[in-house]
This record gives sequence, C-alpha cells and structure tokens, in this order.
Amino acid sequence: MAVHTVTWLPAGRSVRLATGTTLTEGLREAGLELGQPCGGQGRCGRCVVQVTAGSVRRRSTLRLSPADLEAGYALACQAMVEGDATVRLLATEAELERRMVTDKCARRVEAPFDYDPARDQTIRAFALALPEPTLADAVDDWARVERGLAAYGIRGLEIPLPLLPTIGERLRSSNWRVTAIVETDTWHRPGGPVRLIELLPGAAQAPAGLFGLAIDIGTTTVTIYLVDLHSGQVIDTAAEYNGQIARGEDVISRVIYAGKNNGLDELVSLVRATINTLIGRLAARNHVRPDQLYKASVVGNTIMLHLFLGIPPASIRLAPYIPAATRPTPWLAGALGLELHPLANVDCLPGVASYVGADITAGVLACGLADSQALTLFIDVGTNGEIVLGNRDWLMTCACSAGPAFEGAGVLCGMRATRGAIEEVWINQATHEPTYRVIGEGAPRGLCGSGLIALLAELFITGLIDKRGNFKLDQDTPRVRIGDHGAEYVVAWAAEAATGRDIVLTAVDIDNLIRAKGAIFAGFAVLAQSVGLSLDAVERLLVGGSFGQYLNVEKAVQIGLLPDLAWERFTFLGNTAVLGAYLALLSRQARSRLQAIAARMTYLELSADNTFYDAFTSALFLPHTDLGQFPTVARLAAAGEDALAASSRGGKP
Amino acid sequence: MAVHTVTWLPAGRSVRLATGTTLTEGLREAGLELGQPCGGQGRCGRCVVQVTAGSVRRRSTLRLSPADLEAGYALACQAMVEGDATVRLLATEAELERRMVTDKCARRVEAPFDYDPARDQTIRAFALALPEPTLADAVDDWARVERGLAAYGIRGLEIPLPLLPTIGERLRSSNWRVTAIVETDTWHRPGGPVRLIELLPGAAQAPAGLFGLAIDIGTTTVTIYLVDLHSGQVIDTAAEYNGQIARGEDVISRVIYAGKNNGLDELVSLVRATINTLIGRLAARNHVRPDQLYKASVVGNTIMLHLFLGIPPASIRLAPYIPAATRPTPWLAGALGLELHPLANVDCLPGVASYVGADITAGVLACGLADSQALTLFIDVGTNGEIVLGNRDWLMTCACSAGPAFEGAGVLCGMRATRGAIEEVWINQATHEPTYRVIGEGAPRGLCGSGLIALLAELFITGLIDKRGNFKLDQDTPRVRIGDHGAEYVVAWAAEAATGRDIVLTAVDIDNLIRAKGAIFAGFAVLAQSVGLSLDAVERLLVGGSFGQYLNVEKAVQIGLLPDLAWERFTFLGNTAVLGAYLALLSRQARSRLQAIAARMTYLELSADNTFYDAFTSALFLPHTDLGQFPTVARLAAAGEDALAASSRGGKP
Repeated sequence: MAVHTVTWLPAGRSVRLATGTTLTEGLREAGLELGQPCGGQGRCGRCVVQVTAGSVRRRSTLRLSPADLEAGYALACQAMVEGDATVRLLATEAELERRMVTDKCARRVEAPFDYDPARDQTIRAFALALPEPTLADAVDDWARVERGLAAYGIRGLEIPLPLLPTIGERLRSSNWRVTAIVETDTWHRPGGPVRLIELLPGAAQAPAGLFGLAIDIGTTTVTIYLVDLHSGQVIDTAAEYNGQIARGEDVISRVIYAGKNNGLDELVSLVRATINTLIGRLAARNHVRPDQLYKASVVGNTIMLHLFLGIPPASIRLAPYIPAATRPTPWLAGALGLELHPLANVDCLPGVASYVGADITAGVLACGLADSQALTLFIDVGTNGEIVLGNRDWLMTCACSAGPAFEGAGVLCGMRATRGAIEEVWINQATHEPTYRVIGEGAPRGLCGSGLIALLAELFITGLIDKRGNFKLDQDTPRVRIGDHGAEYVVAWAAEAATGRDIVLTAVDIDNLIRAKGAIFAGFAVLAQSVGLSLDAVERLLVGGSFGQYLNVEKAVQIGLLPDLAWERFTFLGNTAVLGAYLALLSRQARSRLQAIAARMTYLELSADNTFYDAFTSALFLPHTDLGQFPTVARLAAAGEDALAASSRGGKP
Repeated sequence: MAVHTVTWLPAGRSVRLATGTTLTEGLREAGLELGQPCGGQGRCGRCVVQVTAGSVRRRSTLRLSPADLEAGYALACQAMVEGDATVRLLATEAELERRMVTDKCARRVEAPFDYDPARDQTIRAFALALPEPTLADAVDDWARVERGLAAYGIRGLEIPLPLLPTIGERLRSSNWRVTAIVETDTWHRPGGPVRLIELLPGAAQAPAGLFGLAIDIGTTTVTIYLVDLHSGQVIDTAAEYNGQIARGEDVISRVIYAGKNNGLDELVSLVRATINTLIGRLAARNHVRPDQLYKASVVGNTIMLHLFLGIPPASIRLAPYIPAATRPTPWLAGALGLELHPLANVDCLPGVASYVGADITAGVLACGLADSQALTLFIDVGTNGEIVLGNRDWLMTCACSAGPAFEGAGVLCGMRATRGAIEEVWINQATHEPTYRVIGEGAPRGLCGSGLIALLAELFITGLIDKRGNFKLDQDTPRVRIGDHGAEYVVAWAAEAATGRDIVLTAVDIDNLIRAKGAIFAGFAVLAQSVGLSLDAVERLLVGGSFGQYLNVEKAVQIGLLPDLAWERFTFLGNTAVLGAYLALLSRQARSRLQAIAARMTYLELSADNTFYDAFTSALFLPHTDLGQFPTVARLAAAGEDALAASSRGGKP
C-alpha cells in the first residue's frame, strides 16, 4: 500500500500515512488531537480542518456545504489520505476553551451549617503523647496507639498494612509524641474499627493540615472543592474539562467508546488524569501536600462514575438500562491512582439508576428538597435532564434523554458556553435585527445553550417561526433565508464573526432544540401525572447544574422548556452536585441522609410505556400543544403575531 | 585492586573476584548459595567448603581445627580471596535435607469437631438464580446479587473494586444463574457487610471448590494444611524449609539480617516464595486452582509474622522488646503477593508479645488448655522455649531464650533432625560403647536435638560426666578423650560416619546444652512461682512443636529439661500451631476464642528482674541444684555412680 507524507500546520509536524488513513488517525500519529464529540461519525463537525495542499478524499456532510469543500475544509474523521498533503488545524475550540473553563476565582465558602468536626467529621486528628514502653508496660506499638486513642473515647483500631511497617520508626523517632489521623466510622461500616491513615511526628494540639476533596465528575467539566476538614471551609475550587471529552461529548458516545479495544481503560485514565491535574493545581496554589488530602466524596452521573471506577457501562445503554452499581463502597485513592493520600477513602456517593446518578441525589441533598414541606421540582439540565419531584414525604425521579442540543452539540453553530459564545439574544420586533451578548465580549463564534434558548424564544415571540418551529419565509429581512442547510436565521454575519462565516440557526437546529426541550417538559409532565398532580401545584422549582446559572427563565418558559410558573417560584442553584458532595464530605450525618435519599427516590422509567411518548409529542410545539398550560406565553405570542402582521403590512404597504 | 578467578566445584562455574572478597560473596556472585545460620559470623560452621587449589586466606575458628585447615577446609564467610583458586562445595546439608523435609504423606484429617459450615465458616457459597432485569425491575447488578443473597438471610453486600467491573458480564453470560462466594462477618468486622469474593457461572446447589489454607510459618519449616471449607477436612499437607534459613537460622539472626540494606525485603520475598511453592505443590497434587483458595489463617512466632507482613522487627530484639503488632487485621492475598485468590483474606492470628506469638496462642487453642479445669503446662520447644501455664481461669506465659542448641546449632556435630542425624543414643554402662539410631538409617552425619538430649542424659546417667557436665577423664575408654576442642565423647568413629570424621560431643557443646535446658526449666519454675504453685501441682504437661514428637521424655527429664512428673501426665501433640490455625480457619467461634485467649494470656517478661536469673543458675546442673525436684533422676544417678565406681574398680583390679 502506498504511503504518503502529511504535514500538519501550524505545528509543521509531518507523518507518513498509508492510503485510506483518516486524518483523525493521522493527527494521533502526529501526537496531535482534536475533539470527537460524535465519536468520529461526521455528525458534530468539531474536527474540521483545512486541506491547504495535496490529495485528501473528503465528502460533503451535514456539517460541510459544497462551498466549504471548495474552500478546502474537511472533517478529519471523514477525510482519507490519498497522496502527500498539507493540512491546517484551525484555531481549535479546545484551545480557546482551555482559557475559559478555568477555576472560578478562589473563594472561601463557609460550612453551610454549624459544623462541628468532633460530631460531624469522620477524618480526625488526635494528638498522642504516649508513655515510652518499658519491660513492665510492653504492649505492642499498635496497642499503644490504640490506648492513646482510647483516652479520646475512640475504641478499636485498624492499621492498614501499607502503614503498619512504618509505625515503629515513626513512634520512636518522634519520641512517642505523634498525631494520629484516623477515619472513624463511615457510612458503610458504622461502628466499625477506627482506621489509621497517617501518623505524623509531634503531638500538635490544634490539628492542622486536614483536607478533603468534593469532586464532581461532569460529562463536560470536572469541578473540585478543596475543603479544610477542620474548619469546614471550602478554601479553593478548581474546574477543568473532563479529559474524556476528546473521546465523545455526551455519555452515550463515551459508553460506545468504552466498548472499543482499550476504550474503557483510556477513558478511566483520562478522567483520573483530569482529577489529578486539578488536585495538583489546588495543592500548589494553597500550599497543601497531596498526602494531606485524607478523603474525597465523588459525584457524577452513573456513567461517569462507572468510567471513573473502571466498570464497563455497556448494560446502561441498552434496555432495560442496568448499571453495575449505583451505591459502590469506598475505595482507596492509592488503588485508584488518585493523588490524594494513598490511604484516603474515595467515596462515590449513591445514585438511583442508570440515568439518575449521584449528581442528582447530591443535588437533592444540597437543595433541601428531601426536607421540604413544599411540593418541589428539582431539575438538573445538561445532556440529559434529570428531574426530581417531591417533598419530605416522597420523591419521584426520572431522566429524559434531551440530547446535547443545549450544550451546543447537534446544532450547526452550537458551541459550549465559553469565550465567543453568544449567550443572550434579543430580536427587534420591527426590524428583525438581533442584538446579542458574547461571552468574553469578543467577536462571536457560535451559540451556546442559553443563547440558543434565547434565540429560539425570540424567533417565536417575534413571529419569525411558528409554533411548530417552521420559518415564515415571507419576511422582509435578509436574516431569514434559505441557506446550504435549508431555512435559517442569520444571527451574525460573517464580517462580524470570529469564524469569518455567518452564524445561523437552521430549521434543523430548531427541530433539535424543540425535541430537546420537549423531552424535558414531558419529563415534568409525566412525573406530576404519576402522582396525580398538576404542574401548577409545584410550589418551588429549583434549577441545578451550571447551565441553570446562565439561563434566562423567561425565555426558557417561552419555548416551553420550563413550566409557566410565577417567577418567584424559581431558584437557580448552580452546581448542586458538588455542593452535595461537599456536604457529604463534611458530615457523616449528611452522608447517611444521602444514602437514605437515594433509597427513598422512586425511579420512573420513561420508556416503560407510552405515557412519556404522548407527553413528548404534545410538547413538540412552542411552547406546547396545550397553550392553557402556558398562559403567559400565549399572551405574548398573540402579541407577537399581531406585531408581525403589522410589520408585514408596514413593510409591504 | 587485583582481581582473581575463582572456580567453584562441582558446578565448574568461574567468577572474577577482587582481593579480599569473602567466599560467601563469591558464591553469590556465581549464583550459588550456602546457608548462613549464624549470619556470617563464623560461628555455625554450616558454610564449610574445601579449597582444592590456589590462594585463599583462611583462619582457624571454633569450627575448624588446625587439622581441618591442613586438609583445605574453610568457612566461606571467613575466608578471603587472595589469588586464583578452586573451591569445592561439599555435599550440602541443605541438599540432603531438601529430600527429608518433604510433605508428610498426604492424609485426610477430619474436622476436629462437629463442623457445620453454615454455623462455623465465614467463607460461604450461595447458588443464585436471579430474575433477569426488566424495565419494571431495574435495580443495579450489585443490588440484584444482594437481593439474591437476602433470600439466604444474608444482609448487606460489599463488592470489592477489583471484582466490580466484571460482575455485569458474569451475570449476563451465565444467564443470571451464578454462585456467589462471599465472606460473612469476620472477627475484625463482626456484623459488617458480607464481602463478595467471587461470582462463578452456574447456580450449583452443592458448593464445591471452596478451599482454605492453614499456614504455620516456622523459623525453620513452613507447614501448610489444605482444607476443604465445605467438609472441613484437611485434604493434604505440605512442608518445606523456610526460604529465609539461608539468611540466618534463628530469629535473632533474621532480625539482624532484616536491618541490613534490602534485608527485610529479601526476607519477606523468601518466605512468601516458600509459601507460594507449597501452594503450587498442594494445588497441583489435589487439582485445586489457586483461585479456589478463599482464605488463609497464618501462625508463626511474632518475628516470623513481622517478616511475613514486611514489618521491620528491629524493636523486638532490644529491651523492652516491643513488636509493632501482635494482632494485625487481615489483608488481601493479592496485595501480599500470595497465590491464593487475590481477594482472599490472609488472617495472621493474634499473638501476645515479642516472644510469645500466634504459634503459641494457636497451640493453646488447639491443646484445649484454655478450657481445661486441670492445671496445665504447655511448652513449645524450638529455638526459644515458649511456655504457658494455666487453666480455664487464668493463663500465664513466658519465653525463654534457649538458643538453637536443640536444633543442632551451636553444637560442633549438631544438625537438624533430618537424614543422617543421630536421633537416639544409648551408652552401655559397662563398656561405655554407644548404640544409636540414625534418621534415614544410613551412616550418621551428626546429632539432632533428640539425639543430643539422649546422649547428654546417657553420659550423665552412666557417670561419664558429672552433674556440672564436666567429663570424668579417668575412664577406661577411648571414647572419652581430649580432642581439638577440649574434652569430648566420640559417639561415632570417622570410619562409620558419612562425613568421614569422628562425630563427637564436646565439653563446650555440653555447656551449651545445659544452658539451653536450664533456660527452659527456669521458665517453668518462674511461671509456677509467679502464681505461688509448685511444679508438682501440674496435672498435665503438653508438649507442642515438631521437636516434641521425637523427644524421649525420660531422657528429657533426666537432664532436667522437663520437670520430673509421672509419665502419664505428659502428652506430645506435634505441631499444635498449624492445628490452631486450622481450627481458626474452620470456625469463626474458634477465631473469636483465639482472640480472647491472646487477650487473656498474661505475659511474664523474664528479664524484668532477677527471679529468672536465679532460677536459671539453679538449673545449670544435671538435672538441677535441687535434686529434691528430680527424685526419679536422683535415684538413677546414684545407681550410675555406683556402677561407674564398680566398673572402674573392675578395669583396674
């Protein structure tokens, strides 16, 4: 087979590739990497490159118009080497994003309750001034430490083997004055023996240097809180894209990738590497040694936790969607390859089902739903929409497969909420000209979730699309047109865009967005219906997830993503998952409550009958088939139609 | 520095060695190995080699007479290379012994009580025919297994991480019919969750293939029982020299060796390798797979267990003799590098102190002392003599540092109880000619412990030595003479010996033996004295340890090693240590009793005051200063003196 030289720009690296090799493979060969959110199926368009010279076989896809092909663009996953070639990597999104998803500025968060480590914390430090052994008092070192702890009311000691060989020297070299760091009874071994994690020289009266981590493994972003286990304060936070993103942007792509040769191992290594990177950053910034991190509480959706623990997630993807475990017991950091103290327990918090994971139970804990008298709806929107309805007496939950549209995937000009993303849009009712706000304030590069919702709402409210989402093409504006991908609205012209290409929302995009919001709303409806309630009865609606932080509620209601409730009933909570992990890290009582919450939550499998499908099809309208459920929106839309009619009349006198 | 060629015979291997290199180092360089019981101090004489040509600097030691030097003999540890040389390894003792310490012939031992695995055993197998998951019954795999076990009354399940990634595939490929092998509550986690160890395809009704090991790590020999955990039977036994022997024959030499660079790691590897060798042999012979071995109970003296677990034993050697741990919690076989199932718990049984280890507590359990109404003395004689005195109400214990004389070390012609060892001797009262019995029935090579005791007793009873152990040199026999090492008795002439040299017992040897027996008897005396009893009050005297199996009680009493009790009070039990490990392996109740026994035993530190020293000096006579304590022996000795006097008169008329 013929072999060709392919040179990658701007790196200037050359590799020898056989005929038929994809450019994606060629990139790996050169040690370069582009994200593959769709897993290399040519659907997402993220791996676009430009062939500047030579012979590469390319094909037109949904993502590449004939004009794009003409200009040399190619999707690396779909393009094959045919001869020598030079290929340019575009300023990659990943590169730009790396600068955006940074740690929120370091902030101190006080413990959210009256924290008392002696009552709440399982990681404790005890100063021991032990009597030196004599012939008359010759108990072994282990028993001597145990006796020292008994003075604090601690009974029973377990010293793990990796530590045991070192204690004799530690006791003697510190002249029998040591600080014992132990883990007292944990949720999975209540009343079990206390476990020695570390034995430090010196009997410090005020325990210092006791830290723990609350870790949220998001499909997109991993977030870590560094917590002082003595004061209970969050002393710093850090976040970074989940290193698995390059192997698939949504959970299903990851499950598929995990099924490939070594795919699982690779995904496991990637996410652990991300966590270690964040730990390194937090440790350096706060002068904390990794071996002072004595515990971690981990949340994430069920698939993320499977991939973190190295459990094949295959059975989660296919009916009846069974995970291997939703309530794993803790495991040691050393065995997991995490750079905490090797004997630190890493506690993956309990989830409920394949699609309602520990991120949601942690969210329920953090938002107080399970203790609430008021009927409360909790939603965490991401790739999936996980919903919990209930109060202190009962908890119902379900997950709707919304797809990644709100994360900017499956949308032509979609992108994640990062620098260059249009996050808010307004359309002038009269001129149909848009105004928009861009994250990072530079030229726009695409539309992120909140921008998409805003644009969809504006198009609907201003009457540019109808309640089915179809464009009204008879408008007197160049912004609504038939483009390469069918009807579309141009939100930014090429000249003003950082990409040098028009930023548009197409009819296909709109269809995707409507299906996504319809799935979530149908989830609300089915949950309420399952307990014989109407959504009107919901007294509080809590929105978790970082997505919620930037959401314009009004517009989310206008498109029928959220129910049409009075604004004061909405609360946006941000990342409730990591907050729940933080609570579980601090408090053994919170950890037990979490276990109880997971056990109490009744999971409703939406694919089990037609109820969901019926609710879904009813929700494939803007805002909904049943306008009676959206009285506010109905009034607005009517006003918009009138205005449009007036403007049309005005435009064509 | 000059470098020379040393050639080793019979292997014919040559190595290049610098001037001043010891032959021991040279042997290692050549990949050869000789035992070093004394740790290379020139005391034991085990590394004797013969320089057949060339230049090696040697010196005379207690072990090498000028005549030996003349003949080219050298101690490898004391000899240094000075020029090219050829050195012959003698037919090594180790080589001969390897053929002797073989497994006792395979034997089935029934469970020593009415064994009911459901009541007694912590390792259980449960057949699970699980309902296949459906959308309506979608609990995770872990919970499904847990539910299956709940039908057997088992509550709570822990699945270790190494197993968790495999359970999904195992359940599905076996169509949800599996056999779960679990460990139920163990002594250190009573009431804790059941731990899954293995999940096998097929829901077998009769559990098969459940095995465990009882392991006795002796300083000299490692013994393993292979146990069927379903029937409770010992289905095979195996024994092998502890691979650490080459690094020091007694525990103190090992402690010293462990303090050298990498010494500890080396000793740990050696003993684990010995265990793995035995496991391999047992597994192959009985068609058992190593991963069917689900539990091990391990006994050994405290130093052996430290060296097995990798804990530096340094503090055990020096006052106040503190071990790191006498009651470690179990650890996984995989982490210890043992070739059982990697998730099998390896449970080191509890000991009492540095010199009263798990071998003794296990012995106490096995011999029934702790449940006995009768005042009982239990002794396990080896390098140390560990003694327990008590009954079901109280238990006192101490350890006397007897030294390795009874194991044949520190005695010129001493050897271990293996092929060629004289194990029994009688001396004709009239002629002073000996008769002896040799292990393996060939020509004699030396004297083992029981042979030494017999010979010492005979020399005393026939009046050839006095009660201080001094030879009476005025005897009319060529067997009593002044040799290279002073006064000695020739038990076998060079012509009849396999070594081609006279086999003798010297005055120095006798002194060593008297000190050894004196230490042990002083232990008895001090223990009895500590509770205000006389040794006469002892109703049962139980002798454990393999040494006891071959001991001639009468002669042991005659030299004052054992108290002068009526014969029917003695019982010889063999290896009680491995028997105790076997009981603990079978029965959780026995394991708990063992924990209680270890806690109940009061350890008497003999070096704490002068009581022991006084008792010891009183015991440095044959049989004792106080002949009133040995009425039987006093009568015999008197008869012997008379006979000797008569014979002397007869010889010189």
